[in-house]
Amino acid sequence: MADTPLDLTLDAAALTARLVDFRSESGAEKPLADAIEIALRALPHLTVDRLGNNIVARTHLGRAQRVVLAGHIDTVPIAGNVPSRLDEDGVLWGCGTCDMKSGVAVQLRIAATVPAPNRDLTFLFYEAEEIESEFNGLHLLSQSDPDLLQADFAILMEPSDAVIEAGCQGTLRIAVTTRGERAHSARSWMGVNAIHQAGAILDRLNAYEARKPVIDGLEYHEGLNAVFISGGVAGNVLPDVCTVQINHRFAPDRSEAEAAAYVREFFAGFEVELTDTAPGALPGLDRPAAKEFIEAVGGEVNPKFGWTDVARFSALGVPAVNFGPGDPMLAHKQEEFVPVEQVYRCESVLTTWLGA
Amino acid sequence: MADTPLDLTLDAAALTARLVDFRSESGAEKPLADAIEIALRALPHLTVDRLGNNIVARTHLGRAQRVVLAGHIDTVPIAGNVPSRLDEDGVLWGCGTCDMKSGVAVQLRIAATVPAPNRDLTFLFYEAEEIESEFNGLHLLSQSDPDLLQADFAILMEPSDAVIEAGCQGTLRIAVTTRGERAHSARSWMGVNAIHQAGAILDRLNAYEARKPVIDGLEYHEGLNAVFISGGVAGNVLPDVCTVQINHRFAPDRSEAEAAAYVREFFAGFEVELTDTAPGALPGLDRPAAKEFIEAVGGEVNPKFGWTDVARFSALGVPAVNFGPGDPMLAHKQEEFVPVEQVYRCESVLTTWLGA
Repeated sequence: MADTPLDLTLDAAALTARLVDFRSESGAEKPLADAIEIALRALPHLTVDRLGNNIVARTHLGRAQRVVLAGHIDTVPIAGNVPSRLDEDGVLWGCGTCDMKSGVAVQLRIAATVPAPNRDLTFLFYEAEEIESEFNGLHLLSQSDPDLLQADFAILMEPSDAVIEAGCQGTLRIAVTTRGERAHSARSWMGVNAIHQAGAILDRLNAYEARKPVIDGLEYHEGLNAVFISGGVAGNVLPDVCTVQINHRFAPDRSEAEAAAYVREFFAGFEVELTDTAPGALPGLDRPAAKEFIEAVGGEVNPKFGWTDVARFSALGVPAVNFGPGDPMLAHKQEEFVPVEQVYRCESVLTTWLGA
Repeated sequence: MADTPLDLTLDAAALTARLVDFRSESGAEKPLADAIEIALRALPHLTVDRLGNNIVARTHLGRAQRVVLAGHIDTVPIAGNVPSRLDEDGVLWGCGTCDMKSGVAVQLRIAATVPAPNRDLTFLFYEAEEIESEFNGLHLLSQSDPDLLQADFAILMEPSDAVIEAGCQGTLRIAVTTRGERAHSARSWMGVNAIHQAGAILDRLNAYEARKPVIDGLEYHEGLNAVFISGGVAGNVLPDVCTVQINHRFAPDRSEAEAAAYVREFFAGFEVELTDTAPGALPGLDRPAAKEFIEAVGGEVNPKFGWTDVARFSALGVPAVNFGPGDPMLAHKQEEFVPVEQVYRCESVLTTWLGA
């Protein structure tokens, strides 16, 4: 272990600060996973399983419902923003304050302070959410041990400004490529410039109009954006290839296959390669567990635009929402912060809802 | 020395093969420069100066005119195409056969076999033509020792299919940049996509119509081409910058400043940075030395589209043409070759013109 264990008697804000200072960039989660495991094993009302740097802690009280509280323990690379700093306005600054060690702190506080909840609880702390999907701890567990994740409802404690965000949009990436013919740029009429041809791809993107379907009363908002463009051989050569990498975000009323068909049709006539795809998640707000939680939080629900791991729970048949402290727009920013008031509020809402 | 000296009694084709097999990629010209220097110092009718890997050998016969025969001794990187191979059709294959060791072989043959030419001769063998201009041996000599290059006429023995190519087009490069605003691609309406904005740059390029001015009876052909495009931050981020690198080739009736003004006007409204510029060279076919040489070759003259070092002679006030064996379209290609017949023809034309 690289550090001392965690003290779960700290309040949720102090515990957030402690977790932020306990560096855990993706790929280097082990010391923090060790500390969390030790802290949880000290709690007699929980059983603890560990797989890799993923920790699953559960109550076994025979309740009618089981609820998952999930959070990832890794962060994006630290950018001079550790250690954390609490300012005089009650704002905690630092890498992971928002995404999502404040959510993890709330999970740990509930684990420590609600030994007899009115619903059985499964606490999931997982690794590698900020990097390629193949390393994602929740993904790996959903493949290797889906039973550990079974529940009536899941709350993913990603930042949502302490408001419920339901469902999530799907995401897919395509590479749209033009092919020309190389020639020396001094005799350009001998070739075909693939970058010039890509103008027609950008023209289509500029003509795109986003669909905004309403699902379960929530208005989603799709998107179609170039995220990379590249082409070029040398400063005196007409390029023969130009590739535009495009990210499509689609509302959860469309499947991955439907979204893929849409972009292929949109770029009809071009060479289109599907490189990455992940399904959206329907809000599922008609499920009893979801309804009860919405009521406990006060009724406000927003649509989730970004893709999150709620889709992985959806795929397992577990309705899931995002609910956690911090502004999701601050995730991955150097100037990331969380208002400690939101940390306390999330803890309080959950504690009350769980009947403590 | 990495190799044995050169035997200038070989015929021009055999000497070309020998030079091709004597590897001299840019930056590694020293062994070949050493061999050329030794071979030239053995010729009593020449004085020899060496600066870096540049060799200047001159006759001092008191003739009314002085002519430069110039060639670079470096090649682009070898691509499995050395040693050279002579096929049954009299075609010599290999790196540098065309660009431009066949021209260098002709220079060396003239140096060895025409001890009393009717014009004083300056043979220039220089390094680093295939890489950044700052390393170019002719450029460096024109700065440090312009007197060594003074002449009434210069023949640059770059490949021209053994036909005179006169003048050359200028070249300039600009970077045209769009700037947007980053946002998560799941909430794209919060940002401005710089790649999408670059569509308007490509639209202008696609609307470009090339100017084709006729100068001294030669039709030039301008060009405006994207040679690189790049933009992108991450697969889930709207890019805030997109840059298109554009190469403009301009006919020699326009100065660098006029060409720069043209592209700035063409891309009015965009951020334009001039990154590189080199002037064209007017054909100068009205000069007596040029007229006499054209007559000797048989009268045919083509415009030179690509930028070549003739522009450096032009800038020194020395009219210059390209005239050498090999198809210029094959330069820098893996399947580079030269018909040996063209090597002999160039040697023969020069030998005759020089009164031997």
